[in-house]
Amino acid sequence: MSEVYASRRNRLRERCNASGSATALISRPANVRYLAGAAPRGAVLLLGRREDLLVCLDPPDDRPSEGRPDEALRVHCLRLPGGDPAVAAADLLVGEGGDSLAVEEHHLTVARHRELRSVAPGLRLADLGGAVEQLRVVKDEEEISCLRIGAEIADQALGELLESILVGRTERHLALELERRLVDHGADGPAFATSVATGPNSGRRGHRPTDRRVEEGDFLSVCLGASYRGYRCEIGRTFVIGTSPADWQIELYDLVFAAQRAGREALAPGAAFRDVDRAARQILDSAGHSEGLAALTGHGVGLEIEEDPQLSPAAMGKLDACVPVTVEPGVHIPGRGGVRIDDTLVVRPEADGGPELLTITTKELLAL
Amino acid sequence: MSEVYASRRNRLRERCNASGSATALISRPANVRYLAGAAPRGAVLLLGRREDLLVCLDPPDDRPSEGRPDEALRVHCLRLPGGDPAVAAADLLVGEGGDSLAVEEHHLTVARHRELRSVAPGLRLADLGGAVEQLRVVKDEEEISCLRIGAEIADQALGELLESILVGRTERHLALELERRLVDHGADGPAFATSVATGPNSGRRGHRPTDRRVEEGDFLSVCLGASYRGYRCEIGRTFVIGTSPADWQIELYDLVFAAQRAGREALAPGAAFRDVDRAARQILDSAGHSEGLAALTGHGVGLEIEEDPQLSPAAMGKLDACVPVTVEPGVHIPGRGGVRIDDTLVVRPEADGGPELLTITTKELLAL
Repeated sequence: MSEVYASRRNRLRERCNASGSATALISRPANVRYLAGAAPRGAVLLLGRREDLLVCLDPPDDRPSEGRPDEALRVHCLRLPGGDPAVAAADLLVGEGGDSLAVEEHHLTVARHRELRSVAPGLRLADLGGAVEQLRVVKDEEEISCLRIGAEIADQALGELLESILVGRTERHLALELERRLVDHGADGPAFATSVATGPNSGRRGHRPTDRRVEEGDFLSVCLGASYRGYRCEIGRTFVIGTSPADWQIELYDLVFAAQRAGREALAPGAAFRDVDRAARQILDSAGHSEGLAALTGHGVGLEIEEDPQLSPAAMGKLDACVPVTVEPGVHIPGRGGVRIDDTLVVRPEADGGPELLTITTKELLAL
Repeated sequence: MSEVYASRRNRLRERCNASGSATALISRPANVRYLAGAAPRGAVLLLGRREDLLVCLDPPDDRPSEGRPDEALRVHCLRLPGGDPAVAAADLLVGEGGDSLAVEEHHLTVARHRELRSVAPGLRLADLGGAVEQLRVVKDEEEISCLRIGAEIADQALGELLESILVGRTERHLALELERRLVDHGADGPAFATSVATGPNSGRRGHRPTDRRVEEGDFLSVCLGASYRGYRCEIGRTFVIGTSPADWQIELYDLVFAAQRAGREALAPGAAFRDVDRAARQILDSAGHSEGLAALTGHGVGLEIEEDPQLSPAAMGKLDACVPVTVEPGVHIPGRGGVRIDDTLVVRPEADGGPELLTITTKELLAL
């Protein structure tokens, strides 16, 4: 594995050098983990001229689910309580005669940035911007394999829930049960706060579970994901409780299903982000549901649950092969409820069979 | 409740005016919640000259556990996806003729700060520093009552766990079960990631649960807390598994217990933070456990699980009445395990009976 991290760091180093910074300080945790194999609490990665250095608060844990620091890295642990690894890294760099440093201005606070300037007044600080986030967009097969296992775990947890009695249980209990099942099946933990929404809450994106109980006739929408070796996937499904869905439920479900399928079918290398969004969105729009639609119909996933790209009307850029994204349109009708359908897929060329669906739970409208 | 928030904002306004800023922008979520009653995702609070304004991404949820925005506040929701409420707030302020704004430089990133400057080039940006965090240190009785309920919930969850069979279960399962019980008893959720540590892991502060199973003869240390209406408490206990603890276990337990009691007894209005720390620390030090001790033996709790004050050797300042803190010394012996004992207490004058213990689970060494 060590070569993977070294090669990622080398690609970043080339970008830094091209933009005039000899060294870089990575502080955003997912970026540290991507480049160093692990991101212990508070750790920063110094991409130096001669060697790379992971600066930590504590000796890193030795837990596979948290990742292990790349053995090719020198690890430096601060002993002083209250120390800031970023400041220590800048100090070390100055000691070695460094004179320019690119930092993640979208992650560092103004106060930490000022402290860096004060410990290293001779250091020219530049902005690394989203350089690491850009490297992270296209995944290698090892990363995709982690996402695939995470998706299997989420499918299993969801499948088991569907076999149990649901009526009378609260959104909060169902969410906790799903999270327990994710861990049972080998997840590091949930990829994000599991969302369970019933009745009038159903179909709301990111709904936080309440004490409302599942009732006959409800829509039940569930969104969950597993984190596996740090990689986070997402699945969302909507079900109906009871034997026979109402006509409005069937109509709404079919509509969202059609939008979600159109979004999935638009995934291809070279497809513009906004065209994928439009494929799904226009179906909901033309059925009169433009009001209240989410700002995006999908997004990248990886070491964070919401990464680049964003699939939204204003997004600029095109998909590449090996980019995992969600497709997750939904409609929520205030007071009545709604439908969300959410898959994680990997963009693949048509010659390889087109988009690879990672979350394979059925999208038929199940009556439970 | 509205007067509470208005009076907090007025105290902050006085501090701002005294330091030369007519207006302030609060972005740190716990600070927003403290002053506005709720902190919807991404929301910022603009403390204006004429009126105060909560700027949100979405219409706030109406859930008691998340808090409701103070009705005296004007709420402004951004409609544009990808908008930054802080930037929108600065823009509104300039529109009203504002010329100076104090921001939380320890929370705002360099990139957001730069964006504020670019949308409002005429605005003089100052640093609000930790002014809100300082206001938050001393709690009112309403806040203490939330902490007290949270502590009762954590005591109940822990008590129920102790009645179940433990041998053979993994750290991860026990942690998930505790979190489920917290929610069962009315918590918003766990106050922080529940820590369950067995055998050689026991006694490690912030240990993240693994798949290790509880065995006969183990120390089992557990640290958990409930969040109740946003207020977060903490309890930690260590138990021994099996009928008869080994001599080294009894000795180590008695030592940590003595240190924790000394820390608790040192809590009084006017006591220096470092003296409380020293009271607990010197007992562990003089028994030869100075190596590997945590940087602090306690800390404030409230809307965040780690707030000011820090009880540590280098901390400056003195305790006031109505400050809730943890006292949580511990010893971990690499390869063998260890003991942590952690209570949440409220500092009270001796005339009122001295420190009020919120977490009342027994601290006898239970053999389970």
